[in-house]
Amino acid sequence: MYLTQGLHRALQQFPDAPATICGERRRTAREVADRVARLAAALQSLEVEAGDRVAMLALNSDRYHEYLLAVPWADAVLNPINIRWSFAEIGYALKDSGTSVLLVDDMFIAMVPMLRKECPGLRAVIHVGDGQAPVGTVDYEGLIAESAPIEDARRGGDSLAGLFYTGGTTGTPKGVMLSHANLLASTFGAVASGHLFGSGARYLHAAPMFHIADLIGWSATEILGGTHVFVPSFSTEAVLAAIAEHHVTHTLLVPTMIQLLLGHPGLDTYDLKSLRGVLYGASSIPQATLEQAMQAMPDASFTQLYGMTELSPVATMLSPAEHYDPALLRCAGRAAPHAEVRVVDPDDAECPRGAVGEVVARGPQVMLGYWNKPEETATALRGGWMHTGDGGYMNDDGYVFIVDRLKDMIITGGENVYSAEVENAIAQHPAVAACAVIGVPDPQWGERVHAVVVTKSDIETTAEAIRAHTKTLIAGYKAPRTVEFTDALPISGAGKILKHQLREQHSNQRG
Amino acid sequence: MYLTQGLHRALQQFPDAPATICGERRRTAREVADRVARLAAALQSLEVEAGDRVAMLALNSDRYHEYLLAVPWADAVLNPINIRWSFAEIGYALKDSGTSVLLVDDMFIAMVPMLRKECPGLRAVIHVGDGQAPVGTVDYEGLIAESAPIEDARRGGDSLAGLFYTGGTTGTPKGVMLSHANLLASTFGAVASGHLFGSGARYLHAAPMFHIADLIGWSATEILGGTHVFVPSFSTEAVLAAIAEHHVTHTLLVPTMIQLLLGHPGLDTYDLKSLRGVLYGASSIPQATLEQAMQAMPDASFTQLYGMTELSPVATMLSPAEHYDPALLRCAGRAAPHAEVRVVDPDDAECPRGAVGEVVARGPQVMLGYWNKPEETATALRGGWMHTGDGGYMNDDGYVFIVDRLKDMIITGGENVYSAEVENAIAQHPAVAACAVIGVPDPQWGERVHAVVVTKSDIETTAEAIRAHTKTLIAGYKAPRTVEFTDALPISGAGKILKHQLREQHSNQRG
Repeated sequence: MYLTQGLHRALQQFPDAPATICGERRRTAREVADRVARLAAALQSLEVEAGDRVAMLALNSDRYHEYLLAVPWADAVLNPINIRWSFAEIGYALKDSGTSVLLVDDMFIAMVPMLRKECPGLRAVIHVGDGQAPVGTVDYEGLIAESAPIEDARRGGDSLAGLFYTGGTTGTPKGVMLSHANLLASTFGAVASGHLFGSGARYLHAAPMFHIADLIGWSATEILGGTHVFVPSFSTEAVLAAIAEHHVTHTLLVPTMIQLLLGHPGLDTYDLKSLRGVLYGASSIPQATLEQAMQAMPDASFTQLYGMTELSPVATMLSPAEHYDPALLRCAGRAAPHAEVRVVDPDDAECPRGAVGEVVARGPQVMLGYWNKPEETATALRGGWMHTGDGGYMNDDGYVFIVDRLKDMIITGGENVYSAEVENAIAQHPAVAACAVIGVPDPQWGERVHAVVVTKSDIETTAEAIRAHTKTLIAGYKAPRTVEFTDALPISGAGKILKHQLREQHSNQRG
Repeated sequence: MYLTQGLHRALQQFPDAPATICGERRRTAREVADRVARLAAALQSLEVEAGDRVAMLALNSDRYHEYLLAVPWADAVLNPINIRWSFAEIGYALKDSGTSVLLVDDMFIAMVPMLRKECPGLRAVIHVGDGQAPVGTVDYEGLIAESAPIEDARRGGDSLAGLFYTGGTTGTPKGVMLSHANLLASTFGAVASGHLFGSGARYLHAAPMFHIADLIGWSATEILGGTHVFVPSFSTEAVLAAIAEHHVTHTLLVPTMIQLLLGHPGLDTYDLKSLRGVLYGASSIPQATLEQAMQAMPDASFTQLYGMTELSPVATMLSPAEHYDPALLRCAGRAAPHAEVRVVDPDDAECPRGAVGEVVARGPQVMLGYWNKPEETATALRGGWMHTGDGGYMNDDGYVFIVDRLKDMIITGGENVYSAEVENAIAQHPAVAACAVIGVPDPQWGERVHAVVVTKSDIETTAEAIRAHTKTLIAGYKAPRTVEFTDALPISGAGKILKHQLREQHSNQRG
């Protein structure tokens, strides 16, 4: 199987049904396939060869959809870039992957000259916009118009489908290598659960399309032959309007987004009755939010997906019916039909039920490995199981409760933030002597990036100054929302910062 | 993934829920797993080694379920024997496969002495019954009681799961080799369609369990964690009683079985409201049968699966919603989410829509090959596509219409018309010397009754006269819609009319 298979199926079964709706622009499967076949030809004419990496740095649109299809059609490999990353991080992902062609929309086009300087391997930049292509870039629509369609290379199976960069525990991002089979295993497994989708879905891309979570919604829509609806990026106004106008049936959100939608002042002026299923991930959903959401979206069922990029990304699911049990709302669900999930101790022996250990998963959705990182790959996949780095326990009914992220990762507003990355950035501020970054519970963001800072005795600074400094180095969402100054950090005998202790102080404050 | 994975998932998530219901005998997943682990140990103690074939010749029961799990648990290969075969055919399947251990129930135990003589490679016979094991056989329950459970070998992925013998077009049965991945691809693909199953299913094994069609129902029940209910073999009484008593939600039948159930005199004394989904295959469902069935089983949706053993077995599906369009009732549905399906000409080029050719399919569900038959395998799988041997065409919406499966039956407007009946009627016209009736593809009727007539040299007649004459003898819908006059019919050396050749002429005319 291969990522373009759904497009071929649509061509065979409903070529003239709407495949994409993007603002005023609507295209059928036949039109999409023609454009994809031409874009693939254009990529090959830009010397993209089998296995070459092609990146995209853009907001959501029907052109992102075409990119996801044209790259495998041309026998190449995807590299969807995190649009919220800093310049340095984006440069790293392009350089590390050896990307040769980059597609950029107007939102990010200004970055191009600097990216070119940073990544000499970048042979061509395609401007994905409606206006004139800036000098030195190639026009997307022009390429499609000029190129003659080629046959699909039908890249698939165990071959590399894409590199998906994730922030690393060590502070350096890693390129997660996922095959076509990996991505389709998660898609079929999640869909087979029966809790999401059906035929005739209209799926709204409300979360960013570079993200693996939205990619599963994309892939499920493809294999079942639904219609994709796009908003450029998440805004309450745009999402509510798109659901109402285009009779959206399914979407994927993170709990923070759901809260923002529910807080929209004009919420009840939008007809959300078409919504049948909301997938969410990244964190549990607070009960109050769920109750409000059920009222506002009366015909929608809620399904939680838990996993990570390395699991393409689905490991466990919490079904709509399970959402009616308040005790289960805090958990991440149970192993999906295609996945094996366990909780293990440091020796990789299975823990007794109820005992906290590391959550591990096995199955056809486990990544091929980290790009050019054989040691990290071997460590993560030791014994054939993907070690998530998440601490959790399993109850007697197989429900997985995540209690701690062993990798020191914070999930804020649906984004993964590794503490080490933030600490590295803060530490570069001249006033900082030591610092520790933790996630603290936050009603809006799920978790909030919080920095505990010890300043040098002779230099004064402020929380705002620390935040501003950090944002010059890493993505804005990774900068600490709150900064706390202290005289000393709790340190273990081995000299390690006792973050556990810092977190406890914060949960006690809340309690 | 592997066939025993669902059992492990059930053990983790709902170990004490009912897993099997067989008459008065009920077992939980925990009990099944314990018995399976012991039975697997017993098989190994009978010198079954990795990859060895273990056959079963028995009616449906919970022990068949245990067999399907214990064989892969012991790292061995299934060989479920067709219980409707003759002694010679059964002997062939055992000998050809090199089966070393055979499980037999009381229904077939009398065959054992002759089978032993025929198959010297048969090292052990296990008696799957409640009474005393006959001399020379090993007692099934005794083996389970005496053996200590072993760890699951977790045989899976691309390794051989089973040999499934099918009658061949050439007269010699062929052992279809299916891997774990093959079977699970069809299972996930069919389930992902959303048209069958959900969690909490109670699946009734009404069709024989040796058959690949029931095996998909079995596998879907396993991956989603449902309960298996068994009747030894199909009887209207037993099936209706099991549905009512055990609140069966899903089952697989063939249209003939559905008709038999509907004809049962006490039909309305059974409560069939629990039935949510009926899968069927082997042929289309006549409209009248479907309407009656919908009345008798008001909450059941109907889904057709089309495929063959070599496709594990799913290629296309007709969804419940599509059953409301009478024109689609005669077709086999459209490519399932995991499958690619085409209609090709003898050179393997895709036929234009509407033109009859051979139905071929590709995907992760395509068999590994025929056991010890490399040439037949290469022919069947030429170009990477499984050649079904079924003649059919695809319409503009991707629906596949099989026209050449039941060679001498025509399905026109949902009605079955037997060629012989029509030929008998036409032959009584005084001007007719010889005639042949075939079904030809027709956009309105699916197939149209078409007569090829040779007239006596001394009498003139017209197509209209033949039609009018025929209608005086048989129902109007059986009369030929088109009549073609010819000088001679193509005849085989044995004097048989070569209808195949006539049909080919018509498919060529259409192209």
